[in-house]
Amino acid sequence: MSMAICSSTIHSHIKVDQRIHLRTSVLPTLLNSIAEVGKCLRESLHIQAVGSTNTSGDNQLNVDLATNEVIHKALRTCPSILSASSEEDAGESPVQHTAPSPSTSPSASKETYAVAFDPLDGSSIIPANWSVGTIIGVWDGSTALRVRAREKQIAAILGVLGPRTTAIVAVRLPGSASASPAPLCFEVGLPAPNADIHVLRETVKFAPHDEIKTRYFAPANLRAAAQDSAYKSLLDYFIASEYTLRYSGGLVPDVYHAFVKGHGVYVSPVTEKSKAKLRVLYEVAPIALIVECAGGRAVDAGTGEGILEKRVEDVDDRSGLVCGTSEEVELVMRMLKGA
Amino acid sequence: MSMAICSSTIHSHIKVDQRIHLRTSVLPTLLNSIAEVGKCLRESLHIQAVGSTNTSGDNQLNVDLATNEVIHKALRTCPSILSASSEEDAGESPVQHTAPSPSTSPSASKETYAVAFDPLDGSSIIPANWSVGTIIGVWDGSTALRVRAREKQIAAILGVLGPRTTAIVAVRLPGSASASPAPLCFEVGLPAPNADIHVLRETVKFAPHDEIKTRYFAPANLRAAAQDSAYKSLLDYFIASEYTLRYSGGLVPDVYHAFVKGHGVYVSPVTEKSKAKLRVLYEVAPIALIVECAGGRAVDAGTGEGILEKRVEDVDDRSGLVCGTSEEVELVMRMLKGA
Repeated sequence: MSMAICSSTIHSHIKVDQRIHLRTSVLPTLLNSIAEVGKCLRESLHIQAVGSTNTSGDNQLNVDLATNEVIHKALRTCPSILSASSEEDAGESPVQHTAPSPSTSPSASKETYAVAFDPLDGSSIIPANWSVGTIIGVWDGSTALRVRAREKQIAAILGVLGPRTTAIVAVRLPGSASASPAPLCFEVGLPAPNADIHVLRETVKFAPHDEIKTRYFAPANLRAAAQDSAYKSLLDYFIASEYTLRYSGGLVPDVYHAFVKGHGVYVSPVTEKSKAKLRVLYEVAPIALIVECAGGRAVDAGTGEGILEKRVEDVDDRSGLVCGTSEEVELVMRMLKGA
Repeated sequence: MSMAICSSTIHSHIKVDQRIHLRTSVLPTLLNSIAEVGKCLRESLHIQAVGSTNTSGDNQLNVDLATNEVIHKALRTCPSILSASSEEDAGESPVQHTAPSPSTSPSASKETYAVAFDPLDGSSIIPANWSVGTIIGVWDGSTALRVRAREKQIAAILGVLGPRTTAIVAVRLPGSASASPAPLCFEVGLPAPNADIHVLRETVKFAPHDEIKTRYFAPANLRAAAQDSAYKSLLDYFIASEYTLRYSGGLVPDVYHAFVKGHGVYVSPVTEKSKAKLRVLYEVAPIALIVECAGGRAVDAGTGEGILEKRVEDVDDRSGLVCGTSEEVELVMRMLKGA
């Protein structure tokens, strides 16, 4: 059974007592900003390019800019968020708060965070009105750059803007397993800005390998298989093994699908002709935290390195991605290496 | 450029003068009911099976029943709609009107319609919050059964419930090309029930073959390729030819994507082990009308027969489907026949 809880008390579900600001301000504010993004999109019937490009070189849509501002505006109300960066910005910048600075609240003086986000992932499928997503990573300290993701990225949110607005939240604090609270991974529904936040599932967890009935796969950049025999062999394997295909081309809904179904593997390959495409900071690092908190694995398709072992040197650092249940990730990496 | 028009005057965009009820009552009411479906879904955070199955044997969700009732309720306000059937109903039934019967309006006495619809297509992807759809066919006369689709199905609507609520409308009246108004095919945005209906695109049309830059494919029931060499060869061809994959597993968004991008081919195969899966009345016939009005083709993947040549004998009649641009449909059918 699920329960509705007031957004002002969502923090009671986030069992990380020693992090008052994270629990009562940062995460509730970020979740509410995703509800705002949903509202913004619903009211943006006319999707159009605005003529500019972001630092990654993507053409920007009116809704990219509008949703980016929605989230920045929310961050300015959180005193403990010191810096922010977004896929639509030029880099990481200090947050200009509209609320009192953290120094005015002695109890929270040790809590400082950096937030990195992609306000609207899936530009190519927005015109067709397919579900898209918002990705947010929360980093311990004043920056998300030049620090190890596994130690410093302590929370992540994956929001799906679809028929409903839903999100999966993961929180994993640093420290030894015995000294820290258990990692959290749960799903919420966000019916409207400033409305109750509904906990749809208390625990998001991949199903045990031997309990999986339907196996799902999401092969990104399928065109790379035309030149890469290992990727083509992997696809042939999925087809021959009767995996079910679900691939919208939106990174967030594609990964989210696996969390909801309890199984799935997402593959964004790196081949000789097809370079690493996804942003570590705005895309793969937050996804990797959620995948691990749900009991799965996330690795760089090019190197096999765990995503969370990375340090982001530049906001535009790129990576391949294989993520999902551990068994599938292992199998995919073996096949991509041609084994 | 697009324009916003009041829902009460959407009929001025529907240039079929001789059909007053179709223009001023049936189509505006149906479009508004899709806005209501969007609202219903947004407010249905908890998706759950209700324990029943429909006549097709699918497990019913709470949202299947709620959205079915939303559309039935709308139909009861349209005096010229005499009968209705839905994928969630047992068959075609007379509509019990809440508004005066058509006999009280002498000018409309010759206009009578039957409506067949699938209120919520895409049950399997609803929990993951992917875009889903509503499909509606409008039939000339008092029934949609045992009549030829090409002659009697005169209008169709494909609604996408996603981040926004949008729909494509096609209208094609019977008669010789010179005697009838030109077929219409346009896209609207439906921000909220009883709100303005926005015409997003005046004309929905597939791009000419030689102007296509990116080619899209949506291979349904991929698992069938494990046993069927022709389907597997077709997939190998798409991959080798560097088509872009977009396959959500939701029939409506998958087909809709092609209308928005100006190119695409959807394949729901019929193989020895995998029977025809889609309902002619609730799914493929309305889609086929829109595809043809957008300049494309829609055929039965099993027989090659044009979808609109079919007569629906039973509400549960099934079909395969290949639809999209004419050139792609021809190519797919050649390859599925093993040529």
